[in-house]
Amino acid sequence: MINDTERLRKQMEFSLEIDKEKSIARQNYTADGSRRENDTEHAWHMAVMALILSEYANEPVDLLKTVSMILIHDLVEIDAGDTYAYDEDGKLTQRQRELAAAERIFNILPEDQALRFRELWDEFEERQTPESKFARTLDNIQPAMLNAASGGISWKEHSVRLSSILKRNEISPEGARALWDYSRENFIMPNVENGIITDDTSA
Amino acid sequence: MINDTERLRKQMEFSLEIDKEKSIARQNYTADGSRRENDTEHAWHMAVMALILSEYANEPVDLLKTVSMILIHDLVEIDAGDTYAYDEDGKLTQRQRELAAAERIFNILPEDQALRFRELWDEFEERQTPESKFARTLDNIQPAMLNAASGGISWKEHSVRLSSILKRNEISPEGARALWDYSRENFIMPNVENGIITDDTSA
Repeated sequence: MINDTERLRKQMEFSLEIDKEKSIARQNYTADGSRRENDTEHAWHMAVMALILSEYANEPVDLLKTVSMILIHDLVEIDAGDTYAYDEDGKLTQRQRELAAAERIFNILPEDQALRFRELWDEFEERQTPESKFARTLDNIQPAMLNAASGGISWKEHSVRLSSILKRNEISPEGARALWDYSRENFIMPNVENGIITDDTSA
Repeated sequence: MINDTERLRKQMEFSLEIDKEKSIARQNYTADGSRRENDTEHAWHMAVMALILSEYANEPVDLLKTVSMILIHDLVEIDAGDTYAYDEDGKLTQRQRELAAAERIFNILPEDQALRFRELWDEFEERQTPESKFARTLDNIQPAMLNAASGGISWKEHSVRLSSILKRNEISPEGARALWDYSRENFIMPNVENGIITDDTSA
């Protein structure tokens, strides 16, 4: 059995290690378009949105579990890096890279907490529960909101097509239909109409 | 009564507004010393630390309330800016600036949520409850951890003296004595011994 000092030392080592997530840049920009957002900003933003938008979850959610899951969902990217939602090559190796990262990073914690964080991350990845489905919806809607606000910079940079966005968002209505509807109508479709997103879905 | 569409529109307007907190720089640096941390990174970091360190709170805490409070505690700085912990002039006007900011920013939300967030922020400011005391302790310990990791850059930049640090941390043992003890022994005193923090407390 580890003593209390050793337990706290591990928890503090983990607390310092996760500071590295602040240097993991995402593809989307902040709303003013001045720079790319990083993973920790994204997680914070999603977590606050969860606090104010949980009433729209299709099924009732345990809010502490949802927020906890959101806060840690990208920690694996400290080792595995950010894989852009529309990078099909990167996505082929993403799972393997992230599993190795989860193994290393969560195990800095004392065993009970390592297990709990790993379970939360697995649940997020598997998207079978109300909490993980809702979190996944926010994971799609938050960047769509910022992309729209910034004039679609990252959509333009990557020449993103509507079919890719709709495919990525296939799961969004499962978590919170009303939020997906809002995102489609207010963030995505106006940028199809103005040509920033290429509509490749018409026959 | 506002209809559902209006309610969601307000919630989304707030969700976009808070993106501005990502551009509020703090005085302390990230652990690698490469740049200043911003308010949202700080809030995310504190929130994850709350998830793993709540067992050290002097009194039992409602973890969802604690994390919610932490996530929103610096939103007022979107308007009021960051006031450095050891800036005595800035602190004279801080309260007034932050009250005006709270009035504007929280009221973008629907009334019930504006009230709830305002109550959470007031509770954090008043530090009378177990949750707010614990959150305040983390608010002191997280930057001390980063200052120590970065070689004390911001302590050096501001020529911070030990008496100031101890004064700011007078409240830290009230929230989580074990975490304050850890911070003092591992983050602060080694930087007194190496001369980065000036010891002005000896008679």
